[in-house]
Amino acid sequence: MEKTDWSEAPCPFARSISLLGEWGALLIVREAFGGTTRFDDFQKKLGMSRNLLTSRLRTLVDGGVLERRPISPRSRRHEYVLSEMGEDLITTVVALRQWGDRWLFKPALHPAEMIDAVDGTTVQTLAVRSTKGRLMARKDLRLQSTNHPRPQATPETRTPLRLRRT
Amino acid sequence: MEKTDWSEAPCPFARSISLLGEWGALLIVREAFGGTTRFDDFQKKLGMSRNLLTSRLRTLVDGGVLERRPISPRSRRHEYVLSEMGEDLITTVVALRQWGDRWLFKPALHPAEMIDAVDGTTVQTLAVRSTKGRLMARKDLRLQSTNHPRPQATPETRTPLRLRRT
Repeated sequence: MEKTDWSEAPCPFARSISLLGEWGALLIVREAFGGTTRFDDFQKKLGMSRNLLTSRLRTLVDGGVLERRPISPRSRRHEYVLSEMGEDLITTVVALRQWGDRWLFKPALHPAEMIDAVDGTTVQTLAVRSTKGRLMARKDLRLQSTNHPRPQATPETRTPLRLRRT
Repeated sequence: MEKTDWSEAPCPFARSISLLGEWGALLIVREAFGGTTRFDDFQKKLGMSRNLLTSRLRTLVDGGVLERRPISPRSRRHEYVLSEMGEDLITTVVALRQWGDRWLFKPALHPAEMIDAVDGTTVQTLAVRSTKGRLMARKDLRLQSTNHPRPQATPETRTPLRLRRT
């Protein structure tokens, strides 16, 4: 399948997708949030082929989302643990789960709630607000160019986006 | 490539991924947030093949994220517009963009800021908080089973997840 490489795109969203947008990558991240660390456990829980899982784990490790380290100092086996960068995906994981809960489950059927292990209450519904605190709808969201230099936005990088084959 | 079908999985996150997790789907959603509606415009902006774009748009329309409608009453050409369900992805889009901004750009190089078109201020950084308002870290996030009936969690659906080939 032909894929566009967005890893150098002049947009943070496109770059995120370049790293996380392949089939299964975000589910691996979600399993890691649930505490899964071993290859075999990821494989069992996700029902993903070993080849595909190997490929996705490599992308996530190379991209800095997961850290691969020996299970114990002398072990040749490895575990996969969220890096600080990976843990910072908490907002994305919660946003996507709350959206799925609202739209892909009947109200009475969702199987589990997210709670704060420290104070025991449920997780607040994420909402997009302006700095002044105004609750924003989709149509209120605008992009405004910053005054920063933009080395990405040269004729070479603007179009066409590079293609790679996988 | 072999893919697992998570559309009936007993987890809202997995179901979301089943709908949005294919390569390019979330980028189409992001373009739709930016106001893109026409097939040719999606194609130009994303540098995606027409076949792939056709397939992803169909998935998003079938899944209820986008609505396909005639450009004008008598037109045979169509446009793709976010449904209410699609617009509700605003938290996911903002979360992923903010994460990419923090981790995939050097501070001075990000090209644009998200602002509220109504009050003109920037979008607040999303944060996961408990109902009591406590700022949560990844390790504080727990899943707790609800008392709702869980028809999904039968031996048939728990393992193995169904496989489909694409």
